[in-house]
Amino acid sequence: MAERGRGWARAVRGLLLDVSGVLYDSGAGGGVPIAGSVEAVRRIKASGLKLQLCTNETQATRESFVRKLRALGFDISVAQVTAPAPAACHLLRERGLRPHLLVHHDLVPEFAEIDKTNPNCVVLGDAAENFTYANLNEAFRLLIGMEKPVLISLGKGRYYKETDGLKLDVGAYMKALEYACDIQAEVVGKPAKTFFESALAELGVPPEQAIMIGDDIVSDVGGAQRCGMRALQVRTGKFR
Amino acid sequence: MAERGRGWARAVRGLLLDVSGVLYDSGAGGGVPIAGSVEAVRRIKASGLKLQLCTNETQATRESFVRKLRALGFDISVAQVTAPAPAACHLLRERGLRPHLLVHHDLVPEFAEIDKTNPNCVVLGDAAENFTYANLNEAFRLLIGMEKPVLISLGKGRYYKETDGLKLDVGAYMKALEYACDIQAEVVGKPAKTFFESALAELGVPPEQAIMIGDDIVSDVGGAQRCGMRALQVRTGKFR
Repeated sequence: MAERGRGWARAVRGLLLDVSGVLYDSGAGGGVPIAGSVEAVRRIKASGLKLQLCTNETQATRESFVRKLRALGFDISVAQVTAPAPAACHLLRERGLRPHLLVHHDLVPEFAEIDKTNPNCVVLGDAAENFTYANLNEAFRLLIGMEKPVLISLGKGRYYKETDGLKLDVGAYMKALEYACDIQAEVVGKPAKTFFESALAELGVPPEQAIMIGDDIVSDVGGAQRCGMRALQVRTGKFR
Repeated sequence: MAERGRGWARAVRGLLLDVSGVLYDSGAGGGVPIAGSVEAVRRIKASGLKLQLCTNETQATRESFVRKLRALGFDISVAQVTAPAPAACHLLRERGLRPHLLVHHDLVPEFAEIDKTNPNCVVLGDAAENFTYANLNEAFRLLIGMEKPVLISLGKGRYYKETDGLKLDVGAYMKALEYACDIQAEVVGKPAKTFFESALAELGVPPEQAIMIGDDIVSDVGGAQRCGMRALQVRTGKFR
Protein backbone atom coordinates (compact mmCIF):
# COMPACT_ATOMS: atom_id res chain seq x y z
CA MET A 1 0.00 0.00 0.00
CA ALA A 2 2.82 2.35 0.95
CA GLU A 3 4.70 1.24 -2.18
CA ARG A 4 1.66 1.86 -4.34
CA GLY A 5 1.24 5.26 -2.77
CA ARG A 6 4.81 6.24 -3.52
CA GLY A 7 4.55 4.89 -7.07
CA TRP A 8 1.48 7.00 -7.69
CA ALA A 9 3.15 10.13 -6.33
CA ARG A 10 6.39 9.51 -8.27
CA ALA A 11 4.45 9.51 -11.55
CA VAL A 12 3.18 13.05 -10.92
CA ARG A 13 5.31 15.75 -12.50
CA GLY A 14 2.91 18.67 -12.77
CA LEU A 15 0.26 20.34 -10.63
CA LEU A 16 -2.53 22.53 -12.00
CA LEU A 17 -4.15 24.69 -9.35
CA ASP A 18 -7.38 26.62 -9.46
CA VAL A 19 -6.87 29.96 -7.72
CA SER A 20 -10.10 31.49 -6.37
CA GLY A 21 -11.33 29.29 -3.53
CA VAL A 22 -8.11 27.23 -3.53
CA LEU A 23 -5.29 29.73 -2.97
CA TYR A 24 -7.40 32.66 -1.82
CA ASP A 25 -10.91 34.00 -1.37
CA SER A 26 -11.30 36.98 -3.67
CA GLY A 27 -12.99 40.18 -2.54
CA ALA A 28 -12.60 43.87 -1.82
CA GLY A 29 -8.99 44.96 -1.23
CA GLY A 30 -7.58 41.95 -3.12
CA GLY A 31 -9.02 39.14 -1.01
CA VAL A 32 -7.32 36.94 1.60
CA PRO A 33 -5.13 33.82 1.23
CA ILE A 34 -6.65 30.53 2.38
CA ALA A 35 -4.81 29.27 5.46
CA GLY A 36 -1.66 27.34 4.51
CA SER A 37 -1.85 28.09 0.79
CA VAL A 38 1.15 30.44 0.55
CA GLU A 39 3.33 27.86 2.28
CA ALA A 40 1.87 25.07 0.10
CA VAL A 41 2.85 26.90 -3.10
CA ARG A 42 6.35 27.42 -1.70
CA ARG A 43 6.72 23.71 -0.91
CA ILE A 44 5.38 22.63 -4.32
CA LYS A 45 7.96 24.79 -6.05
CA ALA A 46 10.76 23.55 -3.72
CA SER A 47 9.80 19.92 -4.46
CA GLY A 48 10.62 20.32 -8.15
CA LEU A 49 7.01 19.71 -9.25
CA LYS A 50 5.95 21.90 -12.15
CA LEU A 51 3.18 24.32 -11.25
CA GLN A 52 0.58 26.06 -13.41
CA LEU A 53 -2.33 28.16 -12.15
CA CYS A 54 -5.43 27.42 -14.17
CA THR A 55 -8.04 30.07 -13.48
CA ASN A 56 -11.32 31.26 -14.94
CA GLU A 57 -10.88 34.59 -13.19
CA THR A 58 -11.64 37.32 -15.70
CA GLN A 59 -11.84 40.40 -13.50
CA ALA A 60 -8.29 41.49 -14.34
CA THR A 61 -5.49 41.08 -16.86
CA ARG A 62 -3.05 38.28 -16.12
CA GLU A 63 -0.43 40.90 -15.24
CA SER A 64 -2.51 42.60 -12.56
CA PHE A 65 -3.83 39.24 -11.36
CA VAL A 66 -0.24 38.08 -10.77
CA ARG A 67 0.63 41.38 -9.04
CA LYS A 68 -2.27 40.75 -6.65
CA LEU A 69 -1.16 37.17 -5.94
CA ARG A 70 2.42 38.28 -5.33
CA ALA A 71 1.17 40.95 -2.92
CA LEU A 72 -0.63 38.18 -1.02
CA GLY A 73 2.69 36.29 -0.76
CA PHE A 74 2.46 33.81 -3.65
CA ASP A 75 5.70 33.42 -5.64
CA ILE A 76 4.10 33.23 -9.12
CA SER A 77 4.99 34.57 -12.57
CA VAL A 78 2.68 35.58 -15.46
CA ALA A 79 3.82 32.58 -17.52
CA GLN A 80 2.53 30.31 -14.75
CA VAL A 81 -1.07 31.50 -15.25
CA THR A 82 -3.45 30.06 -17.83
CA ALA A 83 -6.53 32.31 -18.17
CA PRO A 84 -9.52 32.58 -20.54
CA ALA A 85 -8.93 36.03 -22.07
CA PRO A 86 -5.73 35.13 -23.97
CA ALA A 87 -7.46 31.94 -25.14
CA ALA A 88 -10.41 34.03 -26.36
CA CYS A 89 -8.10 36.44 -28.25
CA HIS A 90 -6.50 33.46 -30.00
CA LEU A 91 -9.93 32.21 -31.08
CA LEU A 92 -11.12 35.67 -32.20
CA ARG A 93 -8.06 36.12 -34.42
CA GLU A 94 -8.33 32.63 -35.85
CA ARG A 95 -11.94 33.18 -36.92
CA GLY A 96 -11.85 36.86 -37.85
CA LEU A 97 -14.34 37.75 -35.11
CA ARG A 98 -14.79 41.33 -33.88
CA PRO A 99 -16.13 41.25 -30.33
CA HIS A 100 -18.51 43.41 -28.39
CA LEU A 101 -17.13 43.03 -24.86
CA LEU A 102 -19.31 42.50 -21.81
CA VAL A 103 -16.47 42.01 -19.35
CA HIS A 104 -14.94 43.57 -16.25
CA HIS A 105 -13.38 47.03 -16.81
CA ASP A 106 -10.02 45.71 -15.69
CA LEU A 107 -10.02 42.93 -18.31
CA VAL A 108 -10.44 45.24 -21.30
CA PRO A 109 -6.65 45.76 -21.88
CA GLU A 110 -6.33 42.02 -22.72
CA PHE A 111 -8.31 42.80 -25.89
CA ALA A 112 -6.31 45.95 -26.83
CA GLU A 113 -4.96 44.41 -30.06
CA ILE A 114 -8.33 43.06 -31.21
CA ASP A 115 -10.49 44.89 -33.77
CA LYS A 116 -13.77 45.71 -32.04
CA THR A 117 -15.44 47.82 -34.76
CA ASN A 118 -18.78 46.68 -36.13
CA PRO A 119 -19.02 43.64 -33.80
CA ASN A 120 -19.97 40.21 -35.14
CA CYS A 121 -19.86 38.37 -31.80
CA VAL A 122 -20.23 38.99 -28.06
CA VAL A 123 -17.53 38.05 -25.55
CA LEU A 124 -18.88 37.55 -22.04
CA GLY A 125 -16.74 37.49 -18.90
CA ASP A 126 -17.40 37.92 -15.20
CA ALA A 127 -18.34 41.56 -15.66
CA ALA A 128 -19.41 42.02 -12.00
CA GLU A 129 -20.70 45.61 -11.60
CA ASN A 130 -20.83 45.84 -15.40
CA PHE A 131 -23.67 43.30 -15.35
CA THR A 132 -26.24 46.09 -15.50
CA TYR A 133 -29.71 45.87 -17.02
CA ALA A 134 -28.63 48.27 -19.79
CA ASN A 135 -25.43 46.35 -20.62
CA LEU A 136 -27.22 43.00 -20.71
CA ASN A 137 -29.91 44.41 -23.01
CA GLU A 138 -27.21 45.87 -25.26
CA ALA A 139 -25.38 42.53 -25.57
CA PHE A 140 -28.71 40.78 -26.18
CA ARG A 141 -29.75 43.20 -28.95
CA LEU A 142 -26.44 42.78 -30.74
CA LEU A 143 -26.78 38.99 -30.60
CA ILE A 144 -30.42 38.82 -31.67
CA GLY A 145 -29.61 41.17 -34.55
CA MET A 146 -26.93 38.83 -35.96
CA GLU A 147 -27.80 36.40 -38.70
CA LYS A 148 -25.98 33.68 -36.76
CA PRO A 149 -25.37 34.93 -33.21
CA VAL A 150 -21.94 34.03 -31.76
CA LEU A 151 -21.58 34.21 -27.98
CA ILE A 152 -18.16 33.41 -26.53
CA SER A 153 -18.11 32.93 -22.77
CA LEU A 154 -14.95 33.09 -20.65
CA GLY A 155 -16.21 30.30 -18.40
CA LYS A 156 -19.47 28.74 -17.28
CA GLY A 157 -19.16 28.87 -13.48
CA ARG A 158 -22.40 29.07 -11.51
CA TYR A 159 -21.11 31.20 -8.64
CA TYR A 160 -18.01 31.92 -6.60
CA LYS A 161 -17.15 33.05 -3.13
CA GLU A 162 -15.84 36.47 -2.26
CA THR A 163 -14.95 37.70 1.19
CA ASP A 164 -18.39 39.33 1.48
CA GLY A 165 -20.37 36.32 0.24
CA LEU A 166 -21.34 34.27 -2.81
CA LYS A 167 -21.66 35.98 -6.21
CA LEU A 168 -23.30 34.89 -9.45
CA ASP A 169 -20.62 33.88 -11.94
CA VAL A 170 -20.46 34.38 -15.69
CA GLY A 171 -22.25 31.07 -16.36
CA ALA A 172 -25.52 32.43 -14.97
CA TYR A 173 -25.45 35.43 -17.35
CA MET A 174 -24.39 33.15 -20.19
CA LYS A 175 -27.52 31.07 -19.59
CA ALA A 176 -29.68 34.21 -19.63
CA LEU A 177 -28.36 35.23 -23.06
CA GLU A 178 -28.45 31.66 -24.39
CA TYR A 179 -32.11 31.38 -23.44
CA ALA A 180 -33.12 34.80 -24.75
CA CYS A 181 -31.46 34.19 -28.14
CA ASP A 182 -32.06 30.41 -28.29
CA ILE A 183 -28.35 29.75 -28.88
CA GLN A 184 -25.45 27.86 -27.30
CA ALA A 185 -22.42 29.81 -26.12
CA GLU A 186 -18.87 28.67 -26.88
CA VAL A 187 -16.93 28.38 -23.61
CA VAL A 188 -13.21 29.10 -23.79
CA GLY A 189 -12.25 28.83 -20.08
CA LYS A 190 -12.58 25.78 -17.83
CA PRO A 191 -14.05 23.15 -18.35
CA ALA A 192 -13.15 23.40 -22.07
CA LYS A 193 -10.72 20.65 -23.07
CA THR A 194 -8.61 23.03 -25.16
CA PHE A 195 -8.10 25.20 -22.07
CA PHE A 196 -6.61 22.36 -20.01
CA GLU A 197 -4.56 21.23 -23.00
CA SER A 198 -2.96 24.65 -23.33
CA ALA A 199 -2.17 24.67 -19.57
CA LEU A 200 -0.51 21.23 -19.94
CA ALA A 201 1.44 22.48 -22.97
CA GLU A 202 2.78 25.36 -20.83
CA LEU A 203 3.91 22.78 -18.26
CA GLY A 204 5.34 20.39 -20.82
CA VAL A 205 3.74 17.50 -18.93
CA PRO A 206 1.33 14.88 -20.35
CA PRO A 207 -2.13 14.61 -18.74
CA GLU A 208 -1.43 11.28 -17.02
CA GLN A 209 1.46 12.89 -15.10
CA ALA A 210 -0.57 15.91 -13.96
CA ILE A 211 -3.13 16.57 -11.23
CA MET A 212 -5.72 19.36 -11.22
CA ILE A 213 -6.81 20.74 -7.84
CA GLY A 214 -9.91 22.94 -7.61
CA ASP A 215 -13.08 23.71 -5.68
CA ASP A 216 -15.55 23.38 -8.59
CA ILE A 217 -16.79 19.90 -9.43
CA VAL A 218 -17.70 20.83 -13.02
CA SER A 219 -15.15 23.44 -14.16
CA ASP A 220 -12.14 21.99 -12.35
CA VAL A 221 -12.68 18.29 -11.66
CA GLY A 222 -14.90 17.36 -14.60
CA GLY A 223 -12.91 19.38 -17.13
CA ALA A 224 -9.56 17.94 -16.04
CA GLN A 225 -10.81 14.37 -16.00
CA ARG A 226 -12.19 14.66 -19.53
CA CYS A 227 -8.68 15.72 -20.49
CA GLY A 228 -7.13 12.54 -19.03
CA MET A 229 -5.87 14.11 -15.81
CA ARG A 230 -6.57 13.09 -12.26
CA ALA A 231 -8.36 15.77 -10.24
CA LEU A 232 -9.03 16.59 -6.61
CA GLN A 233 -11.79 18.76 -5.18
CA VAL A 234 -10.79 20.79 -2.13
CA ARG A 235 -13.32 21.64 0.56
CA THR A 236 -12.42 25.32 0.71
CA GLY A 237 -13.90 28.12 -1.42
CA LYS A 238 -17.46 27.59 -2.49
CA PHE A 239 -17.50 23.90 -1.44
CA ARG A 240 -20.79 23.25 0.38
CA MET B 1 -66.33 26.99 -47.56
CA ALA B 2 -68.15 30.17 -46.57
CA GLU B 3 -70.56 28.03 -44.51
CA ARG B 4 -67.66 26.29 -42.82
CA GLY B 5 -66.04 29.64 -42.10
CA ARG B 6 -69.21 30.99 -40.51
CA GLY B 7 -69.69 27.78 -38.51
CA TRP B 8 -66.18 28.04 -37.09
CA ALA B 9 -66.68 31.67 -36.17
CA ARG B 10 -70.15 31.04 -34.65
CA ALA B 11 -68.59 28.53 -32.22
CA VAL B 12 -66.28 31.21 -30.79
CA ARG B 13 -67.67 32.98 -27.74
CA GLY B 14 -64.54 34.34 -26.08
CA LEU B 15 -61.34 36.06 -27.13
CA LEU B 16 -58.18 36.11 -25.01
CA LEU B 17 -55.73 38.80 -26.07
CA ASP B 18 -52.11 39.24 -25.17
CA VAL B 19 -51.43 42.95 -24.63
CA SER B 20 -47.78 43.92 -25.15
CA GLY B 21 -46.98 43.52 -28.84
CA VAL B 22 -50.65 42.91 -29.72
CA LEU B 23 -52.53 45.96 -28.47
CA TYR B 24 -49.55 48.22 -27.91
CA ASP B 25 -45.76 48.45 -27.83
CA SER B 26 -44.74 49.29 -24.27
CA GLY B 27 -42.10 51.88 -23.51
CA ALA B 28 -41.32 55.23 -21.94
CA GLY B 29 -44.35 57.47 -21.48
CA GLY B 30 -46.77 54.51 -21.53
CA GLY B 31 -46.03 53.15 -25.00
CA VAL B 32 -48.02 53.46 -28.23
CA PRO B 33 -51.06 51.53 -29.52
CA ILE B 34 -50.45 49.23 -32.47
CA ALA B 35 -52.28 50.58 -35.55
CA GLY B 36 -55.95 49.53 -35.58
CA SER B 37 -55.91 47.88 -32.15
CA VAL B 38 -58.08 50.44 -30.32
CA GLU B 39 -60.75 50.12 -32.99
CA ALA B 40 -60.40 46.31 -32.98
CA VAL B 41 -61.12 46.14 -29.22
CA ARG B 42 -64.17 48.41 -29.72
CA ARG B 43 -65.53 46.14 -32.46
CA ILE B 44 -64.89 42.95 -30.45
CA LYS B 45 -66.88 44.39 -27.55
CA ALA B 46 -69.66 45.61 -29.87
CA SER B 47 -69.89 42.14 -31.46
CA GLY B 48 -70.93 40.55 -28.15
CA LEU B 49 -67.78 38.39 -27.95
CA LYS B 50 -66.44 38.07 -24.43
CA LEU B 51 -63.00 39.60 -24.04
CA GLN B 52 -60.23 38.92 -21.54
CA LEU B 53 -56.72 40.37 -21.64
CA CYS B 54 -54.20 37.73 -20.72
CA THR B 55 -50.87 39.38 -19.99
CA ASN B 56 -47.55 38.47 -18.42
CA GLU B 57 -46.81 42.14 -17.91
CA THR B 58 -45.53 42.57 -14.35
CA GLN B 59 -44.23 46.11 -14.40
CA ALA B 60 -47.36 47.52 -12.76
CA THR B 61 -50.39 46.59 -10.68
CA ARG B 62 -53.45 45.59 -12.67
CA GLU B 63 -55.07 48.88 -11.62
CA SER B 64 -52.34 51.09 -13.03
CA PHE B 65 -51.97 48.82 -16.07
CA VAL B 66 -55.66 49.35 -16.86
CA ARG B 67 -55.32 53.11 -16.30
CA LYS B 68 -52.52 53.14 -18.86
CA LEU B 69 -54.56 51.13 -21.38
CA ARG B 70 -57.58 53.40 -20.91
CA ALA B 71 -55.35 56.45 -21.46
CA LEU B 72 -54.26 54.88 -24.75
CA GLY B 73 -57.93 54.60 -25.74
CA PHE B 74 -58.77 50.98 -24.84
CA ASP B 75 -62.15 50.51 -23.13
CA ILE B 76 -61.04 47.88 -20.58
CA SER B 77 -61.81 47.20 -16.90
CA VAL B 78 -59.62 45.62 -14.21
CA ALA B 79 -61.79 42.49 -14.14
CA GLN B 80 -60.97 41.97 -17.81
CA VAL B 81 -57.27 41.51 -17.08
CA THR B 82 -55.67 38.23 -16.03
CA ALA B 83 -52.13 38.85 -14.76
CA PRO B 84 -49.46 36.80 -12.98
CA ALA B 85 -49.13 38.74 -9.69
CA PRO B 86 -52.63 37.91 -8.35
CA ALA B 87 -52.03 34.28 -9.40
CA ALA B 88 -48.74 34.29 -7.48
CA CYS B 89 -50.41 35.73 -4.36
CA HIS B 90 -52.97 32.93 -4.48
CA LEU B 91 -50.19 30.34 -4.66
CA LEU B 92 -48.14 31.97 -1.87
CA ARG B 93 -51.13 31.97 0.49
CA GLU B 94 -52.04 28.39 -0.36
CA ARG B 95 -48.55 27.12 0.46
CA GLY B 96 -47.65 29.44 3.34
CA LEU B 97 -44.76 30.95 1.40
CA ARG B 98 -43.16 34.26 2.39
CA PRO B 99 -41.54 35.84 -0.66
CA HIS B 100 -38.47 37.88 -1.24
CA LEU B 101 -39.56 40.05 -4.18
CA LEU B 102 -37.34 40.74 -7.17
CA VAL B 103 -39.94 42.63 -9.17
CA HIS B 104 -40.62 46.05 -10.65
CA HIS B 105 -41.14 48.83 -8.07
CA ASP B 106 -44.62 49.46 -9.40
CA LEU B 107 -45.71 45.84 -8.88
CA VAL B 108 -44.92 45.75 -5.15
CA PRO B 109 -48.42 46.94 -4.04
CA GLU B 110 -49.90 43.70 -5.47
CA PHE B 111 -48.10 41.89 -2.62
CA ALA B 112 -49.17 44.33 0.12
CA GLU B 113 -51.20 41.73 2.00
CA ILE B 114 -48.52 39.03 1.84
CA ASP B 115 -46.18 38.31 4.77
CA LYS B 116 -42.65 38.96 3.52
CA THR B 117 -40.71 38.53 6.77
CA ASN B 118 -37.98 35.87 6.91
CA PRO B 119 -38.45 34.81 3.24
CA ASN B 120 -38.67 31.15 2.29
CA CYS B 121 -39.00 31.70 -1.46
CA VAL B 122 -38.10 34.21 -4.19
CA VAL B 123 -40.71 35.73 -6.52
CA LEU B 124 -39.23 36.94 -9.79
CA GLY B 125 -40.97 39.36 -12.15
CA ASP B 126 -39.85 41.60 -14.98
CA ALA B 127 -37.93 43.85 -12.60
CA ALA B 128 -36.43 46.00 -15.41
CA GLU B 129 -34.11 48.58 -13.80
CA ASN B 130 -34.28 46.54 -10.59
CA PHE B 131 -32.32 43.78 -12.35
CA THR B 132 -29.08 45.07 -10.87
CA TYR B 133 -25.99 42.99 -10.12
CA ALA B 134 -26.57 43.55 -6.38
CA ASN B 135 -30.26 42.56 -6.51
CA LEU B 136 -29.56 39.43 -8.53
CA ASN B 137 -26.81 38.39 -6.11
CA GLU B 138 -29.16 38.99 -3.18
CA ALA B 139 -31.91 36.81 -4.67
CA PHE B 140 -29.33 34.14 -5.51
CA ARG B 141 -27.90 34.08 -1.97
CA LEU B 142 -31.34 33.72 -0.44
CA LEU B 143 -32.13 30.81 -2.76
CA ILE B 144 -28.82 28.99 -2.34
CA GLY B 145 -29.17 29.36 1.44
CA MET B 146 -32.55 27.58 1.51
CA GLU B 147 -32.71 23.89 2.26
CA LYS B 148 -35.05 23.45 -0.71
CA PRO B 149 -34.92 26.62 -2.84
CA VAL B 150 -38.30 27.78 -4.19
CA LEU B 151 -38.22 30.19 -7.14
CA ILE B 152 -41.57 31.44 -8.45
CA SER B 153 -41.38 33.24 -11.77
CA LEU B 154 -44.15 35.52 -13.10
CA GLY B 155 -43.54 34.30 -16.65
CA LYS B 156 -40.79 32.78 -18.75
CA GLY B 157 -40.68 35.16 -21.73
CA ARG B 158 -37.36 35.48 -23.54
CA TYR B 159 -37.68 39.13 -24.53
CA TYR B 160 -40.22 41.77 -25.47
CA LYS B 161 -40.35 44.89 -27.54
CA GLU B 162 -40.50 48.39 -26.15
CA THR B 163 -40.65 51.59 -28.15
CA ASP B 164 -36.86 51.97 -27.79
CA GLY B 165 -36.02 48.37 -28.73
CA LEU B 166 -36.00 44.77 -27.51
CA LYS B 167 -35.51 44.04 -23.80
CA LEU B 168 -34.59 40.86 -21.96
CA ASP B 169 -37.68 39.46 -20.26
CA VAL B 170 -38.03 37.72 -16.90
CA GLY B 171 -37.37 34.28 -18.44
CA ALA B 172 -33.73 35.15 -19.10
CA TYR B 173 -33.16 36.09 -15.45
CA MET B 174 -35.12 33.03 -14.33
CA LYS B 175 -32.68 30.86 -16.32
CA ALA B 176 -29.71 32.61 -14.70
CA LEU B 177 -31.00 31.81 -11.19
CA GLU B 178 -32.08 28.29 -12.17
CA TYR B 179 -28.60 27.53 -13.46
CA ALA B 180 -26.76 29.10 -10.52
CA CYS B 181 -28.84 27.18 -7.96
CA ASP B 182 -29.39 24.02 -10.06
CA ILE B 183 -33.17 24.27 -9.60
CA GLN B 184 -36.34 24.59 -11.68
CA ALA B 185 -38.54 27.66 -11.25
CA GLU B 186 -42.32 27.40 -10.95
CA VAL B 187 -43.93 29.62 -13.58
CA VAL B 188 -47.29 31.19 -12.67
CA GLY B 189 -47.90 33.39 -15.75
CA LYS B 190 -48.26 32.26 -19.35
CA PRO B 191 -47.67 29.53 -20.58
CA ALA B 192 -48.82 27.84 -17.33
CA LYS B 193 -52.03 25.88 -17.87
CA THR B 194 -53.56 27.12 -14.61
CA PHE B 195 -53.11 30.69 -15.82
CA PHE B 196 -55.15 30.17 -18.98
CA GLU B 197 -57.71 28.19 -17.01
CA SER B 198 -58.26 31.09 -14.65
CA ALA B 199 -58.66 33.48 -17.61
CA LEU B 200 -61.27 31.14 -19.12
CA ALA B 201 -63.03 30.95 -15.76
CA GLU B 202 -63.25 34.76 -15.71
CA LEU B 203 -64.83 34.62 -19.17
CA GLY B 204 -67.14 31.73 -18.33
CA VAL B 205 -66.29 30.14 -21.68
CA PRO B 206 -64.92 26.62 -22.27
CA PRO B 207 -61.54 26.30 -24.05
CA GLU B 208 -63.02 24.98 -27.31
CA GLN B 209 -65.10 28.17 -27.64
CA ALA B 210 -62.16 30.51 -27.04
CA ILE B 211 -59.28 31.82 -29.11
CA MET B 212 -56.01 33.19 -27.79
CA ILE B 213 -54.21 35.85 -29.83
CA GLY B 214 -50.60 36.75 -29.05
CA ASP B 215 -47.16 37.50 -30.47
CA ASP B 216 -45.21 34.85 -28.53
CA ILE B 217 -45.13 31.35 -29.95
CA VAL B 218 -44.35 29.71 -26.58
CA SER B 219 -46.11 31.81 -23.93
CA ASP B 220 -49.24 32.64 -25.95
CA VAL B 221 -49.74 30.06 -28.68
CA GLY B 222 -48.19 26.99 -27.04
CA GLY B 223 -49.75 27.68 -23.64
CA ALA B 224 -53.24 28.21 -25.04
CA GLN B 225 -53.09 25.12 -27.25
CA ARG B 226 -52.03 22.91 -24.34
CA CYS B 227 -55.15 24.22 -22.60
CA GLY B 228 -57.41 23.07 -25.48
CA MET B 229 -57.85 26.50 -27.08
CA ARG B 230 -57.14 27.56 -30.61
CA ALA B 231 -54.43 30.23 -30.88
CA LEU B 232 -53.21 32.75 -33.41
CA GLN B 233 -49.81 34.39 -33.58
CA VAL B 234 -49.83 37.98 -34.82
CA ARG B 235 -46.93 39.43 -36.76
CA THR B 236 -46.69 42.59 -34.65
CA GLY B 237 -44.69 43.08 -31.48
CA LYS B 238 -41.55 40.97 -31.22
CA PHE B 239 -42.48 38.76 -34.19
CA ARG B 240 -39.35 38.31 -36.30
